[in-house]
Amino acid sequence: MPLFYQPNVTSGEHFLDGEESRHCVKVLRHSNGDAIEIIDGDGSKYTAVITNANHKKCEFNITEAIKKQHPPHYIHLAISPTKNMDRMEWLIEKIVEIGVQEVSFILCKNSERRVLKIDRLIKKAISAMKQSGQFYLPKIHELNSFDKFISDSVQEEKFIAYVDKSNQSFLHKAASAKSNYCILIGPEGDFTKEELQAAFDHQFNMVSLGPSTLRTETAGLAACHTLNLLNW
Amino acid sequence: MPLFYQPNVTSGEHFLDGEESRHCVKVLRHSNGDAIEIIDGDGSKYTAVITNANHKKCEFNITEAIKKQHPPHYIHLAISPTKNMDRMEWLIEKIVEIGVQEVSFILCKNSERRVLKIDRLIKKAISAMKQSGQFYLPKIHELNSFDKFISDSVQEEKFIAYVDKSNQSFLHKAASAKSNYCILIGPEGDFTKEELQAAFDHQFNMVSLGPSTLRTETAGLAACHTLNLLNW
Repeated sequence: MPLFYQPNVTSGEHFLDGEESRHCVKVLRHSNGDAIEIIDGDGSKYTAVITNANHKKCEFNITEAIKKQHPPHYIHLAISPTKNMDRMEWLIEKIVEIGVQEVSFILCKNSERRVLKIDRLIKKAISAMKQSGQFYLPKIHELNSFDKFISDSVQEEKFIAYVDKSNQSFLHKAASAKSNYCILIGPEGDFTKEELQAAFDHQFNMVSLGPSTLRTETAGLAACHTLNLLNW
Repeated sequence: MPLFYQPNVTSGEHFLDGEESRHCVKVLRHSNGDAIEIIDGDGSKYTAVITNANHKKCEFNITEAIKKQHPPHYIHLAISPTKNMDRMEWLIEKIVEIGVQEVSFILCKNSERRVLKIDRLIKKAISAMKQSGQFYLPKIHELNSFDKFISDSVQEEKFIAYVDKSNQSFLHKAASAKSNYCILIGPEGDFTKEELQAAFDHQFNMVSLGPSTLRTETAGLAACHTLNLLNW
């Protein structure tokens, strides 16, 4: 059954927004009486019947609702954006498939990209959520300074990935199951010594993601996958 | 120091091949006496000095050699190629970064791509090996039929990833550390029941990579990362 994304269904808004309406009615040519599925990105999936196949505001009646519980853990990935935006779009697609709850972009001393538009990243996330059968859309935040981010961070288990051959504290051994995590991934030139110290001062623990030197986006994905594995 | 790839250095061939010579001499403008680094993709890294900066056959003298041992485990990923080649190139880049020893492409009933050129994939692998500081280049095989592949497979621990909500045997719990593994990843439409049965007949065990439905290339990467984590 065709699947659409519409937030705030629970608040009684039983219509698809502009883009999804157009896709439903103009592209897929659905009409009144057709059955569709809707996810709200907040844990619910609905089966519905189209009552007004308007390509600007397609209305529907809900016939069935399923609510999926949150996973027992929470992953907040904070990552320095790469110069090449394709790599960030790719990362978002992959971590949504694998599972992540929150994504922040952090501006570090060595960040190669100083400006970031998150609209396209949110679209990528919605598309990956639909594709992979996820019920939750992760929160994706605008670019923020490293210092502000680490001082605001509230997760229980906080980690900073750092490339240091002598660092043998692997993330998969340092993190506990069923916890909520924040993991910082730095830019290609890595975090500076000052950033590392500031993270320590805010109770972040230095971890390694493995013996290889990973690209930023590979490290982001590896971190999310590692933390999920601890909880499966 | 600039890094080049040249296989068979140990057999006494102390020059870079055509493309690497051109890159070294024409693009990077190295000349006689310059120091370079060379990896042979078979565990060795050399420091060398250019003795003849010829852009077709750049000769060098080795001044130092380091040999890196194989990891204690061996991962053979066998995957159905996706329709979109970018996704396979991406996969190769990522699994070389993360670590994989052998990659096979398998033609399944539901494979969307029936022809595959591996030249570009090998180039991607070489580039990722250089970028990520790996010493070994994985073996990458031409497309082979599923049946032929599973009957020829010689790994100790053999797995087939299959999307089945009732399948709770996760790869990270089913596999042992320090072993050699073969893991099969199917096409978008997954393996057929007949392929699954044929794999069982050849001692492959059905595993899940997690609760999400992953794209083919995401599954390939997740499988390699999971098996590596067991050994770190």
